[in-house]
Amino acid sequence: MPILTFLSDFGTGDYYVAAVKGTVLRLTPGTTLVDVTHEVPPGDVETAAFLLAAAAPAFPDGTVHLAVVDPGVGSDRRILVARTASATFVAPDNGLLTPVLDGAVAVRAVERSDLFLSGPGQTFHGRDRFAPVAAWLLGGGTEVELGPEITDPRRLSAPPPRREPGRISGRVVHVDRYGNLVTDIPAAWLPATPCRAQVGERSGGQFASLRVSHYAAIPAGEAAMLTGSLGTVELSLNGDDLARRWGISRGTPVQVVWKEAGRREDRPLKDVTNR
Amino acid sequence: MPILTFLSDFGTGDYYVAAVKGTVLRLTPGTTLVDVTHEVPPGDVETAAFLLAAAAPAFPDGTVHLAVVDPGVGSDRRILVARTASATFVAPDNGLLTPVLDGAVAVRAVERSDLFLSGPGQTFHGRDRFAPVAAWLLGGGTEVELGPEITDPRRLSAPPPRREPGRISGRVVHVDRYGNLVTDIPAAWLPATPCRAQVGERSGGQFASLRVSHYAAIPAGEAAMLTGSLGTVELSLNGDDLARRWGISRGTPVQVVWKEAGRREDRPLKDVTNR
Amino acid sequence: MPILTFLSDFGTGDYYVAAVKGTVLRLTPGTTLVDVTHEVPPGDVETAAFLLAAAAPAFPDGTVHLAVVDPGVGSDRRILVARTASATFVAPDNGLLTPVLDGAVAVRAVERSDLFLSGPGQTFHGRDRFAPVAAWLLGGGTEVELGPEITDPRRLSAPPPRREPGRISGRVVHVDRYGNLVTDIPAAWLPATPCRAQVGERSGGQFASLRVSHYAAIPAGEAAMLTGSLGTVELSLNGDDLARRWGISRGTPVQVVWKEAGRREDRPLKDVTNR
Repeated sequence: MPILTFLSDFGTGDYYVAAVKGTVLRLTPGTTLVDVTHEVPPGDVETAAFLLAAAAPAFPDGTVHLAVVDPGVGSDRRILVARTASATFVAPDNGLLTPVLDGAVAVRAVERSDLFLSGPGQTFHGRDRFAPVAAWLLGGGTEVELGPEITDPRRLSAPPPRREPGRISGRVVHVDRYGNLVTDIPAAWLPATPCRAQVGERSGGQFASLRVSHYAAIPAGEAAMLTGSLGTVELSLNGDDLARRWGISRGTPVQVVWKEAGRREDRPLKDVTNR
Repeated sequence: MPILTFLSDFGTGDYYVAAVKGTVLRLTPGTTLVDVTHEVPPGDVETAAFLLAAAAPAFPDGTVHLAVVDPGVGSDRRILVARTASATFVAPDNGLLTPVLDGAVAVRAVERSDLFLSGPGQTFHGRDRFAPVAAWLLGGGTEVELGPEITDPRRLSAPPPRREPGRISGRVVHVDRYGNLVTDIPAAWLPATPCRAQVGERSGGQFASLRVSHYAAIPAGEAAMLTGSLGTVELSLNGDDLARRWGISRGTPVQVVWKEAGRREDRPLKDVTNR
Repeated sequence: MPILTFLSDFGTGDYYVAAVKGTVLRLTPGTTLVDVTHEVPPGDVETAAFLLAAAAPAFPDGTVHLAVVDPGVGSDRRILVARTASATFVAPDNGLLTPVLDGAVAVRAVERSDLFLSGPGQTFHGRDRFAPVAAWLLGGGTEVELGPEITDPRRLSAPPPRREPGRISGRVVHVDRYGNLVTDIPAAWLPATPCRAQVGERSGGQFASLRVSHYAAIPAGEAAMLTGSLGTVELSLNGDDLARRWGISRGTPVQVVWKEAGRREDRPLKDVTNR
């Protein structure tokens, strides 16, 4: 039984999610449908890209992942189908697939307009175009027949995390429901020695220097670093919402600084230490 | 495998939705369950009617649609089963099925109290009555055996949109998650010539005179008309929430006005133009 | 086809729910997944326990219920598997299973660490430990092989409702989406004679003395008692949110008082009556 995951910014109070699912079930009966989320803020392609890439690895080989956050719906933006070693992704060509593209075997632009449904208007390609493309893949159609390979899919231009002696620079890439600050800094990059994570502006920012393995080990009221569920550094409180406490949102810069053996601390860290 | 869609005002933070689904799965194993939405404002039968009618056409023939927005639960309001050419609808007799009734082959009032479960109290017919009725249909039971045909189902008394030379009158029937104003005015009614959509009171109201095919074609900050996903006129901003900007909610009157060839503009349009 | 219900405090805006479901589908293909809710307030084990126990009875025999509200994730808190006559429950050992324990045939602490996945970090046992344990049960594994029986599962220490002549004492155990106050007082305990439900402090509290069978029978603006969907006393308004009107939240004490035949009213009731 084929599995389709579905992510969108449709919300769950409208008929949009159901219309897409109904269309898929009509075209490919027996599909197992799993929501990733539909609460992506309207048009927030970055959040969609993060959540899709985070959820996808858990699913069985052969899963089709449909993601529709599509402010360009109705324009001539392309519909992409990206195939990785284990899954197929269907999404608009607006950067949503960025984290998936590096591992993609092939990326195609859908040109099979014969698959599209002639729903009213040009505002609901989720139902009229994405759903039938996903259904076609779920029904056993190969992506080769959907359209030509392309080499220029749009990518989000997020700067990757950087490391230099005594310093790692990254950013908050997600704030979860608990107010945990998920960063893009690989936890494996952290030094064996004590270090300090600075969130936001260098002076006036907020800091965590404690490192723990799990939330319950964090002393009350203190912020700590831990290895999050994606293997990156996460900043958290125990039983409280750090993002709200600190007023932090996605995109905020994060620096992890430490004293290298045989080195003087560099200025910003010193400033911080002197406070 | 039979499909049941489920719409309610139960919210998703309680146990109510799960109790209905569990009951259906207990009585008719193998049912595929699809949520339409459970975020209908408590008791808001009009919103439920709109969303149910909007979602249903996407589903395969034979789908059973269960809709429980039921402020009269426990009273002697009837439970209706309406059969259309392609689907069966189960809902309380409170107007929820209004948009479905015109296309119904038969509407019946359920009298098979032997199907009902004897759950505690009279506050959760979703679990104790609607779920077993839906399960019975999903299990292959015919609606004929459920009860007699009736000719007096309750209907919501929404006035239909009206057109006259130079003017169409309708209303906002839904505000979606993006703040788009979905009207009941068929897009096909719009004139070929330029026109203007007035929302709310005639003077002091808000206007859109631009017509586009999709959101991304709307200039920043401007409101425009487009053909929405149900074939009616929709008023939207590009990437912003028009309902919030204008303070518009469901039910607000909408007028589309234009100059007929060989006619003088009628007063209200003239007023508008002179501002 | 095995059924898994899933309850958590993960919210529906993150990738967490999908990652758990994907893992279950990967390990036990064909599982039918049903959400109870994921909107349990973060870490609120009491709400989770209430909702899980309320939803579970509706499901068919053999259902596996997974509940992950787990502020102790990553610590040495145990993972429990409780088997009742009709279902199996998987949850952290933090009191979440309290209402289920009395009817449990056996409660076990999972020791099969070979089942666990080696996901990054110790913050997402939902995906890395609970999901594979649930999948193992769904795939036909017996709970006996998961670990030894234990006799000391953690229990929430909620005081049970109490009755004495002329008085029942309980509390609000849930406020639902409609603002109904669900109490733990069995409706069968109510006297045949008139009585009065006092919510909150004895003086200055709020009262309902009307008893009805369903919401629509409640006069506008008045609060009434009725038998709720779990067989306990519920306090409600007709079409309005009583919890908001009265400012009541979970845990608020509720007293039902009445005049016993041949007895004088006791003081608090008299105070109330004299107002």
